[in-house]
Amino acid sequence: MLYPRNAWYVACSEDDLRDEIPYSARLLDEPIVIWRANGAIYALESRCVHRAASLSMGTCKGATLRCKYHGLLFNHLGKVIDIPGQDNIPSIASVRKYAVERRFGWVWLWMGEADSADRDLLPNLPADIAFENHVIGGGVLDYQVEARLVSDNLLDFGHLTYVHAESFQPGDLWLETPMRITPIERGVHAGRWVEGSSGPGWMELTVNVDEWIGYEYLVPGVLIMFGGHFPLGTARSSGYRRPDPALAIGQGAINIQAVSPTGPRSSRFYFLTGPHRRFGDEAMRDRMIHVNYQAFNEDKAVIEAQQKMLDHEPHRPVMPTIHDRGVIVYNHLVDNLVAEERDLAVRDRRLATA
Amino acid sequence: MLYPRNAWYVACSEDDLRDEIPYSARLLDEPIVIWRANGAIYALESRCVHRAASLSMGTCKGATLRCKYHGLLFNHLGKVIDIPGQDNIPSIASVRKYAVERRFGWVWLWMGEADSADRDLLPNLPADIAFENHVIGGGVLDYQVEARLVSDNLLDFGHLTYVHAESFQPGDLWLETPMRITPIERGVHAGRWVEGSSGPGWMELTVNVDEWIGYEYLVPGVLIMFGGHFPLGTARSSGYRRPDPALAIGQGAINIQAVSPTGPRSSRFYFLTGPHRRFGDEAMRDRMIHVNYQAFNEDKAVIEAQQKMLDHEPHRPVMPTIHDRGVIVYNHLVDNLVAEERDLAVRDRRLATA
Amino acid sequence: MLYPRNAWYVACSEDDLRDEIPYSARLLDEPIVIWRANGAIYALESRCVHRAASLSMGTCKGATLRCKYHGLLFNHLGKVIDIPGQDNIPSIASVRKYAVERRFGWVWLWMGEADSADRDLLPNLPADIAFENHVIGGGVLDYQVEARLVSDNLLDFGHLTYVHAESFQPGDLWLETPMRITPIERGVHAGRWVEGSSGPGWMELTVNVDEWIGYEYLVPGVLIMFGGHFPLGTARSSGYRRPDPALAIGQGAINIQAVSPTGPRSSRFYFLTGPHRRFGDEAMRDRMIHVNYQAFNEDKAVIEAQQKMLDHEPHRPVMPTIHDRGVIVYNHLVDNLVAEERDLAVRDRRLATA
Repeated sequence: MLYPRNAWYVACSEDDLRDEIPYSARLLDEPIVIWRANGAIYALESRCVHRAASLSMGTCKGATLRCKYHGLLFNHLGKVIDIPGQDNIPSIASVRKYAVERRFGWVWLWMGEADSADRDLLPNLPADIAFENHVIGGGVLDYQVEARLVSDNLLDFGHLTYVHAESFQPGDLWLETPMRITPIERGVHAGRWVEGSSGPGWMELTVNVDEWIGYEYLVPGVLIMFGGHFPLGTARSSGYRRPDPALAIGQGAINIQAVSPTGPRSSRFYFLTGPHRRFGDEAMRDRMIHVNYQAFNEDKAVIEAQQKMLDHEPHRPVMPTIHDRGVIVYNHLVDNLVAEERDLAVRDRRLATA
Repeated sequence: MLYPRNAWYVACSEDDLRDEIPYSARLLDEPIVIWRANGAIYALESRCVHRAASLSMGTCKGATLRCKYHGLLFNHLGKVIDIPGQDNIPSIASVRKYAVERRFGWVWLWMGEADSADRDLLPNLPADIAFENHVIGGGVLDYQVEARLVSDNLLDFGHLTYVHAESFQPGDLWLETPMRITPIERGVHAGRWVEGSSGPGWMELTVNVDEWIGYEYLVPGVLIMFGGHFPLGTARSSGYRRPDPALAIGQGAINIQAVSPTGPRSSRFYFLTGPHRRFGDEAMRDRMIHVNYQAFNEDKAVIEAQQKMLDHEPHRPVMPTIHDRGVIVYNHLVDNLVAEERDLAVRDRRLATA
Repeated sequence: MLYPRNAWYVACSEDDLRDEIPYSARLLDEPIVIWRANGAIYALESRCVHRAASLSMGTCKGATLRCKYHGLLFNHLGKVIDIPGQDNIPSIASVRKYAVERRFGWVWLWMGEADSADRDLLPNLPADIAFENHVIGGGVLDYQVEARLVSDNLLDFGHLTYVHAESFQPGDLWLETPMRITPIERGVHAGRWVEGSSGPGWMELTVNVDEWIGYEYLVPGVLIMFGGHFPLGTARSSGYRRPDPALAIGQGAINIQAVSPTGPRSSRFYFLTGPHRRFGDEAMRDRMIHVNYQAFNEDKAVIEAQQKMLDHEPHRPVMPTIHDRGVIVYNHLVDNLVAEERDLAVRDRRLATA
């Protein structure tokens, strides 16, 4: 799997954790144990240094975890601090530790060296959108696909017309208005105005509006979207650029999604959605969650079938269309990051042996 | 999998198709989408040329199919005729098309080049047997084995005594009368007279007869069988050759079977069976189908266990007996056809690059 | 799988066999058919020499077995003695025969050449313990792991404190008293005195005792254990060596366990347990079986997770502790036996071709 390690990946939801109960996670095909104690969250490689027992079966007490098999005790840095019945502890007796952060109710791990974790790379909402002004809820789906196929899906919203004809019901105008793709720092921005839209079918709007949907898609697979309804003419008057969210007359919803590669052919997809408090309440949020689940299960069916096709003949080329610009730009960016990390690793090994 | 491509394979039953609903088939491990519209049947490779989505999830309208993922529209020749939102269509935008024929209620695909499909190679009943004079029904079984093991099974009826002791109940005489194997064009003919037979146990005959069973086994795995009861003495008076079906005094049944290689270790087995109208009705047909299902499930258990043994030690030799003559002649024929196709392909590539 | 062939492996329990009904077993990933007739037990390779049908599906009559597929008849030496419809029988027409013995209610196969089977290598109870003086019962578990991981588990009882805290409840003193490991012929001996013990928690003893647990762990994975309670002071007065079982004042129980490698990642674990008649009855035996099942399922969970970790990164080293001495000594012994057999095989091939 070719993914950058120097990035924040969602490992679980905060709600998945119970105090001092180990949680078994997986990112980039690495087994990880996560636990919360006294308000802090810890994450270690889950393979015991002794004989490879799973630390996720162990017992947590404060910032320590004891292996279930022969009782080795680890601190939260991954260092063994007790081997029952043995006096000396070898210097190699430690497992990998991961840097941990929380954001949007999710637990994020830095998959590079914990000491070099860069908090500035955690994703943010745009400055003019406040998370707390929205009524937010979400969900999780597991896809039996390589995470890149989920990113590809999220980078070309042209599929909404076909895959989501029954859930999002984007309507005919959607197909006719192109997405504008703009490369940004560690990602791409995609924006789309649908002028005179009657909105997604499921919303049953009574007036037509100018509908905006825009999102950042950021390494290693995080989507930050804002969508809203604006008075007719806003698209044109704003030069078809991103509008001021404060001018929305409907929806003003945010969607936050994260794709975590768990294994070579498995990904976990986390999503949050909900309207601005001005335009919707818990009932609207729950309706949005419902439609989202419906839609993402549509994606899941299509993408999992696609994965089987690709695996059946992995070396056959694909044929991009003009809608693949976001896909191509983003994957190029990811490939470059992976190559940079590899080059740095080679250099570090050379320095170490020089 | 080493199977000839220039041959007709059963892909499904006609009854499996609904108008304008895509049907997902698999032959020689290739994913195929089949649909019927306005009385015609179409078959295309099921891998979208864009990003490998499964065309079997698409939407059919007349002779066209639209991909579910990003809406590419294919005609029945496999050519892309619309990419939504994109004006030009690349010349490479097409998928493989398969030639289609119907026979015996089944849908047959030519797995070689569609343009060179040879209708004369579709299997026929012998000239002295009319399909419409029989009361016919059938069924389908999936075997988790390489298709060749099913052919091997069908080419040595010596197994009836042991595998089908409880279903066909061939009786002691069966074991003592050898099968005559004769090589024919694209197959072998196997014929057997059991003189003074009391018939298969399940039929509970009241008089003894001379029983004939004869079948052609044809590339790529099609069995065309006629069996009937004849007056005592017919075997001898006919020189132990194939009798005139019109002289039968009982049964006069036909059996048509086809083995389709679907994957490296999976095969679909189609069968039709039924008596001549002179000797049986729908009730007899249903009884024959019932006994057939019972027997083929006995085969399935034995062959699937055999496949596991072979896969466990694939390089250990087997030890043929005298009953394997049909197996050996037929497999030799298949191997030759595969080798010929390979040689032609090599020659064509040489010509193309010369 | 690197296991010695010149050894006795448990293939099934005697109770698994019914007269003249073939039983399908697997040892060292070899398919084996076992049957009992007229009081004798026979074991042959289960792959028919003809076309690799599974002989476990055949029909047994006395010392013969007939293949279900085409009816070849094998005698108990593995030689084909009848090919229906064929007069001559090729000299190569035979399958491998295994030497069979019974002990402790189990059926043991010698996986080396049947002619060189060494009955002296069948495991025995120590001379001062009589099987018939105990009330014995047992059970079976299947582990989805390489058998060596089960042996490793059984060779370090330090895991009892953590893995079996809820079943065996060994108590705090257990952890503080080291196991003495002594290399013996074809195995290791492990012995442990716990002085002033209150016994395993589940026994709810009313007085403290000196508790002894000692076992031989023998190639290819057989554990012969004796445990008992002795008057306080016995440990010291016996020089911390193995006590005379006759001096026990409680328990006096034996445990016999056997680990059979069935496949590359599958093992079958057989166990027997029960108290000396002086100290317990059928009710105590059943309680011991219950606690054993509970404990071995705890092991199963831990070891199967360990296997996944090891398979995920098979080349990462492990880090032994001082408790691994038994593991290391025993595995070294097994590796040497495997290497010796390989060297002998090479020499035999050289002699054969000289």
